[in-house]
Amino acid sequence: MTRHEVEVITEDQHLVKADEEMARLLDVDVGEEVNHRTVRLVADGVPYVHAVSLSPIGRMPEEVRRDMMRADIPIGKILRNYGMETRRDFDTIQMETDGSLFGSREYLSRTYRIVHHNDALMWIKERFPADGRWLL
Amino acid sequence: MTRHEVEVITEDQHLVKADEEMARLLDVDVGEEVNHRTVRLVADGVPYVHAVSLSPIGRMPEEVRRDMMRADIPIGKILRNYGMETRRDFDTIQMETDGSLFGSREYLSRTYRIVHHNDALMWIKERFPADGRWLL
Repeated sequence: MTRHEVEVITEDQHLVKADEEMARLLDVDVGEEVNHRTVRLVADGVPYVHAVSLSPIGRMPEEVRRDMMRADIPIGKILRNYGMETRRDFDTIQMETDGSLFGSREYLSRTYRIVHHNDALMWIKERFPADGRWLL
Repeated sequence: MTRHEVEVITEDQHLVKADEEMARLLDVDVGEEVNHRTVRLVADGVPYVHAVSLSPIGRMPEEVRRDMMRADIPIGKILRNYGMETRRDFDTIQMETDGSLFGSREYLSRTYRIVHHNDALMWIKERFPADGRWLL
Protein backbone atom coordinates (compact mmCIF):
# COMPACT_ATOMS: atom_id res chain seq x y z
CA MET A 1 0.00 0.00 0.00
CA THR A 2 2.81 2.45 0.76
CA ARG A 3 5.04 1.19 -2.07
CA HIS A 4 7.86 1.05 0.46
CA GLU A 5 9.42 -1.93 2.14
CA VAL A 6 7.82 -2.60 5.52
CA GLU A 7 10.25 -3.06 8.40
CA VAL A 8 9.42 -5.02 11.54
CA ILE A 9 11.09 -3.11 14.38
CA THR A 10 11.22 -4.95 17.68
CA GLU A 11 10.64 -2.66 20.63
CA ASP A 12 10.93 -5.37 23.23
CA GLN A 13 11.13 -9.12 23.55
CA HIS A 14 11.39 -11.17 26.71
CA LEU A 15 10.23 -14.40 28.27
CA VAL A 16 7.60 -14.33 31.00
CA LYS A 17 5.72 -16.90 33.02
CA ALA A 18 2.05 -16.92 32.03
CA ASP A 19 -0.15 -15.05 34.48
CA GLU A 20 -3.85 -15.85 34.77
CA GLU A 21 -4.89 -13.62 31.89
CA MET A 22 -2.24 -15.01 29.55
CA ALA A 23 -3.13 -18.54 30.58
CA ARG A 24 -6.74 -17.81 29.66
CA LEU A 25 -5.90 -16.16 26.33
CA LEU A 26 -3.59 -18.96 25.23
CA ASP A 27 -5.24 -21.87 27.04
CA VAL A 28 -2.01 -22.82 28.81
CA ASP A 29 -1.25 -23.39 32.47
CA VAL A 30 -0.31 -20.48 34.72
CA GLY A 31 3.49 -20.35 34.90
CA GLU A 32 4.17 -21.71 31.42
CA GLU A 33 6.86 -19.92 29.48
CA VAL A 34 5.56 -17.29 27.09
CA ASN A 35 7.47 -15.12 24.63
CA HIS A 36 6.23 -11.52 24.96
CA ARG A 37 7.11 -9.43 21.95
CA THR A 38 6.31 -5.86 20.99
CA VAL A 39 6.93 -4.64 17.47
CA ARG A 40 6.04 -1.77 15.20
CA LEU A 41 5.67 -1.92 11.44
CA VAL A 42 7.32 1.00 9.73
CA ALA A 43 7.39 2.02 6.07
CA ASP A 44 9.49 4.93 4.84
CA GLY A 45 10.01 6.07 8.43
CA VAL A 46 6.27 6.17 9.25
CA PRO A 47 4.88 3.75 11.88
CA TYR A 48 1.58 2.15 10.81
CA VAL A 49 0.97 -0.76 13.15
CA HIS A 50 1.83 -1.61 16.73
CA ALA A 51 1.58 -5.25 17.77
CA VAL A 52 1.98 -7.18 20.99
CA SER A 53 2.21 -10.94 20.72
CA LEU A 54 2.23 -13.72 23.27
CA SER A 55 3.58 -17.11 22.21
CA PRO A 56 3.65 -20.19 24.44
CA ILE A 57 6.99 -21.47 23.24
CA GLY A 58 6.67 -24.92 24.74
CA ARG A 59 3.91 -25.62 22.25
CA MET A 60 5.96 -25.06 19.12
CA PRO A 61 8.06 -27.29 16.96
CA GLU A 62 11.73 -26.64 17.81
CA GLU A 63 12.62 -24.94 14.52
CA VAL A 64 9.54 -22.70 14.63
CA ARG A 65 10.41 -21.69 18.18
CA ARG A 66 13.93 -20.77 17.09
CA ASP A 67 12.59 -18.47 14.36
CA MET A 68 9.94 -17.06 16.66
CA MET A 69 12.57 -16.09 19.23
CA ARG A 70 14.53 -14.17 16.65
CA ALA A 71 13.45 -10.59 16.74
CA ASP A 72 13.09 -9.80 13.09
CA ILE A 73 11.01 -12.47 11.33
CA PRO A 74 7.31 -11.66 10.79
CA ILE A 75 4.94 -14.41 11.90
CA GLY A 76 3.51 -14.71 8.37
CA LYS A 77 6.95 -15.57 7.04
CA ILE A 78 7.51 -18.17 9.74
CA LEU A 79 4.19 -19.90 8.99
CA ARG A 80 4.98 -19.81 5.29
CA ASN A 81 8.51 -21.17 5.70
CA TYR A 82 7.19 -24.24 7.48
CA GLY A 83 4.02 -24.61 5.36
CA MET A 84 1.90 -24.46 8.51
CA GLU A 85 -1.88 -24.58 8.13
CA THR A 86 -3.62 -22.30 10.59
CA ARG A 87 -6.74 -20.33 11.20
CA ARG A 88 -7.14 -16.92 12.82
CA ASP A 89 -9.79 -16.67 15.49
CA PHE A 90 -10.69 -13.03 16.06
CA ASP A 91 -11.81 -12.00 19.53
CA THR A 92 -12.22 -8.22 19.45
CA ILE A 93 -12.21 -5.40 16.92
CA GLN A 94 -12.83 -1.92 18.28
CA MET A 95 -12.02 1.76 18.17
CA GLU A 96 -10.15 2.98 21.24
CA THR A 97 -9.68 6.56 22.30
CA ASP A 98 -8.05 6.14 25.67
CA GLY A 99 -4.50 7.03 24.80
CA SER A 100 -1.97 7.85 22.20
CA LEU A 101 -0.48 5.74 19.46
CA PHE A 102 2.21 7.10 17.18
CA GLY A 103 0.82 10.59 17.76
CA SER A 104 -2.82 9.67 17.20
CA ARG A 105 -5.33 9.85 20.05
CA GLU A 106 -7.66 7.35 18.40
CA TYR A 107 -6.76 3.93 17.16
CA LEU A 108 -8.37 0.78 15.87
CA SER A 109 -7.41 -2.37 17.73
CA ARG A 110 -8.01 -6.03 17.14
CA THR A 111 -7.07 -9.16 19.00
CA TYR A 112 -6.88 -12.65 17.59
CA ARG A 113 -5.25 -16.01 18.03
CA ILE A 114 -3.34 -17.93 15.38
CA VAL A 115 -4.54 -21.50 15.82
CA HIS A 116 -2.73 -24.63 14.67
CA HIS A 117 -4.00 -28.14 15.39
CA ASN A 118 -6.62 -26.44 17.55
CA ASP A 119 -3.97 -24.91 19.85
CA ALA A 120 -3.21 -21.18 20.01
CA LEU A 121 0.33 -20.68 18.69
CA MET A 122 0.11 -16.96 19.29
CA TRP A 123 -2.19 -14.30 20.71
CA ILE A 124 -1.84 -10.93 19.02
CA LYS A 125 -3.12 -7.45 19.71
CA GLU A 126 -2.62 -5.08 16.79
CA ARG A 127 -3.28 -1.35 16.94
CA PHE A 128 -3.67 0.98 13.98
CA PRO A 129 -3.60 4.77 14.47
CA ALA A 130 -6.88 6.23 13.12
CA ASP A 131 -5.59 9.27 11.30
CA GLY A 132 -4.61 10.63 7.91
CA ARG A 133 -1.48 8.53 7.49
CA TRP A 134 -3.60 5.92 5.67
CA LEU A 135 -4.44 8.37 2.86
CA LEU A 136 -1.70 6.91 0.69
CA MET B 1 -12.34 0.15 3.83
CA THR B 2 -15.40 1.47 2.03
CA ARG B 3 -17.54 1.57 5.19
CA HIS B 4 -20.23 -0.22 3.21
CA GLU B 5 -21.32 -3.82 3.34
CA VAL B 6 -19.52 -5.92 0.73
CA GLU B 7 -21.76 -8.09 -1.42
CA VAL B 8 -20.57 -11.25 -3.15
CA ILE B 9 -22.39 -11.30 -6.50
CA THR B 10 -22.15 -14.58 -8.36
CA GLU B 11 -21.80 -14.06 -12.10
CA ASP B 12 -21.64 -17.74 -12.95
CA GLN B 13 -21.32 -21.12 -11.29
CA HIS B 14 -21.20 -24.50 -12.94
CA LEU B 15 -19.58 -27.90 -12.68
CA VAL B 16 -16.89 -28.89 -15.15
CA LYS B 17 -14.62 -31.87 -15.66
CA ALA B 18 -11.02 -30.91 -14.93
CA ASP B 19 -9.01 -30.26 -18.08
CA GLU B 20 -5.23 -30.60 -18.07
CA GLU B 21 -4.59 -27.11 -16.78
CA MET B 22 -7.12 -27.43 -13.96
CA ALA B 23 -5.72 -30.84 -13.08
CA ARG B 24 -2.26 -29.28 -12.79
CA LEU B 25 -3.43 -26.28 -10.74
CA LEU B 26 -5.38 -28.41 -8.28
CA ASP B 27 -3.31 -31.58 -8.41
CA VAL B 28 -6.33 -33.72 -9.32
CA ASP B 29 -6.88 -36.19 -12.14
CA VAL B 30 -8.11 -34.97 -15.51
CA GLY B 31 -11.90 -35.46 -15.60
CA GLU B 32 -12.50 -34.93 -11.89
CA GLU B 33 -15.48 -32.77 -11.03
CA VAL B 34 -14.61 -29.13 -10.37
CA ASN B 35 -16.87 -26.28 -9.29
CA HIS B 36 -16.11 -23.24 -11.46
CA ARG B 37 -17.35 -20.03 -9.91
CA THR B 38 -17.06 -16.40 -10.95
CA VAL B 39 -17.95 -13.64 -8.52
CA ARG B 40 -17.53 -9.93 -8.07
CA LEU B 41 -17.27 -8.09 -4.78
CA VAL B 42 -19.36 -4.95 -4.75
CA ALA B 43 -19.69 -2.22 -2.12
CA ASP B 44 -22.20 0.61 -2.46
CA GLY B 45 -22.75 -0.32 -6.10
CA VAL B 46 -19.03 -0.17 -7.02
CA PRO B 47 -17.24 -3.38 -8.07
CA TYR B 48 -13.81 -3.76 -6.47
CA VAL B 49 -12.72 -7.35 -7.02
CA HIS B 50 -13.34 -10.01 -9.63
CA ALA B 51 -12.58 -13.60 -8.68
CA VAL B 52 -12.60 -16.95 -10.45
CA SER B 53 -12.34 -20.04 -8.29
CA LEU B 54 -11.91 -23.71 -9.06
CA SER B 55 -12.83 -26.21 -6.36
CA PRO B 56 -12.43 -29.98 -6.68
CA ILE B 57 -15.61 -30.89 -4.87
CA GLY B 58 -14.77 -34.57 -4.41
CA ARG B 59 -12.04 -33.50 -2.02
CA MET B 60 -14.27 -31.70 0.45
CA PRO B 61 -16.12 -32.78 3.53
CA GLU B 62 -19.80 -33.14 2.62
CA GLU B 63 -21.06 -30.12 4.58
CA VAL B 64 -18.29 -27.88 3.24
CA ARG B 65 -19.15 -28.94 -0.30
CA ARG B 66 -22.79 -28.08 0.30
CA ASP B 67 -21.88 -24.55 1.41
CA MET B 68 -19.34 -24.18 -1.39
CA MET B 69 -22.01 -25.03 -3.98
CA ARG B 70 -24.28 -22.32 -2.66
CA ALA B 71 -23.69 -19.20 -4.62
CA ASP B 72 -23.55 -16.61 -1.91
CA ILE B 73 -21.20 -17.70 0.88
CA PRO B 74 -17.67 -16.25 0.78
CA ILE B 75 -14.92 -18.83 1.15
CA GLY B 76 -13.56 -17.08 4.26
CA LYS B 77 -16.91 -17.58 5.99
CA ILE B 78 -17.02 -21.25 5.03
CA LEU B 79 -13.53 -21.90 6.42
CA ARG B 80 -14.48 -20.03 9.59
CA ASN B 81 -17.77 -21.86 10.06
CA TYR B 82 -15.99 -25.20 10.05
CA GLY B 83 -12.87 -24.00 11.94
CA MET B 84 -10.68 -25.21 9.08
CA GLU B 85 -6.93 -24.62 9.33
CA THR B 86 -5.42 -23.71 5.97
CA ARG B 87 -2.56 -21.96 4.33
CA ARG B 88 -2.55 -19.83 1.19
CA ASP B 89 0.13 -20.64 -1.34
CA PHE B 90 0.57 -17.73 -3.73
CA ASP B 91 1.66 -18.48 -7.27
CA THR B 92 1.56 -15.16 -9.16
CA ILE B 93 1.09 -11.48 -8.43
CA GLN B 94 1.28 -9.14 -11.39
CA MET B 95 -0.02 -6.06 -13.15
CA GLU B 96 -1.93 -6.84 -16.33
CA THR B 97 -2.87 -4.39 -19.06
CA ASP B 98 -4.33 -6.70 -21.68
CA GLY B 99 -7.98 -5.95 -21.27
CA SER B 100 -10.67 -4.25 -19.33
CA LEU B 101 -11.95 -4.86 -15.83
CA PHE B 102 -14.87 -2.89 -14.44
CA GLY B 103 -13.95 -0.05 -16.79
CA SER B 104 -10.22 -0.06 -15.97
CA ARG B 105 -7.69 -1.04 -18.62
CA GLU B 106 -5.07 -2.01 -16.02
CA TYR B 107 -5.56 -4.40 -13.19
CA LEU B 108 -3.59 -6.21 -10.53
CA SER B 109 -4.06 -9.97 -10.48
CA ARG B 110 -3.00 -12.69 -8.11
CA THR B 111 -3.45 -16.42 -8.08
CA TYR B 112 -3.22 -18.68 -5.08
CA ARG B 113 -4.36 -21.98 -3.67
CA ILE B 114 -6.11 -22.50 -0.35
CA VAL B 115 -4.43 -25.58 1.05
CA HIS B 116 -5.85 -27.90 3.71
CA HIS B 117 -4.10 -31.08 4.85
CA ASN B 118 -1.65 -30.40 2.02
CA ASP B 119 -4.39 -30.64 -0.65
CA ALA B 120 -5.63 -27.64 -2.66
CA LEU B 121 -9.26 -27.01 -1.64
CA MET B 122 -9.52 -24.13 -4.07
CA TRP B 123 -7.53 -22.30 -6.73
CA ILE B 124 -8.37 -18.61 -6.99
CA LYS B 125 -7.55 -15.84 -9.41
CA GLU B 126 -8.45 -12.41 -8.09
CA ARG B 127 -8.30 -9.24 -10.16
CA PHE B 128 -8.34 -5.69 -8.81
CA PRO B 129 -8.89 -2.73 -11.16
CA ALA B 130 -5.90 -0.37 -10.89
CA ASP B 131 -7.64 2.98 -10.83
CA GLY B 132 -8.90 5.73 -8.57
CA ARG B 133 -11.73 3.75 -7.00
CA TRP B 134 -9.34 2.74 -4.21
CA LEU B 135 -8.94 6.36 -3.05
CA LEU B 136 -11.53 5.88 -0.34
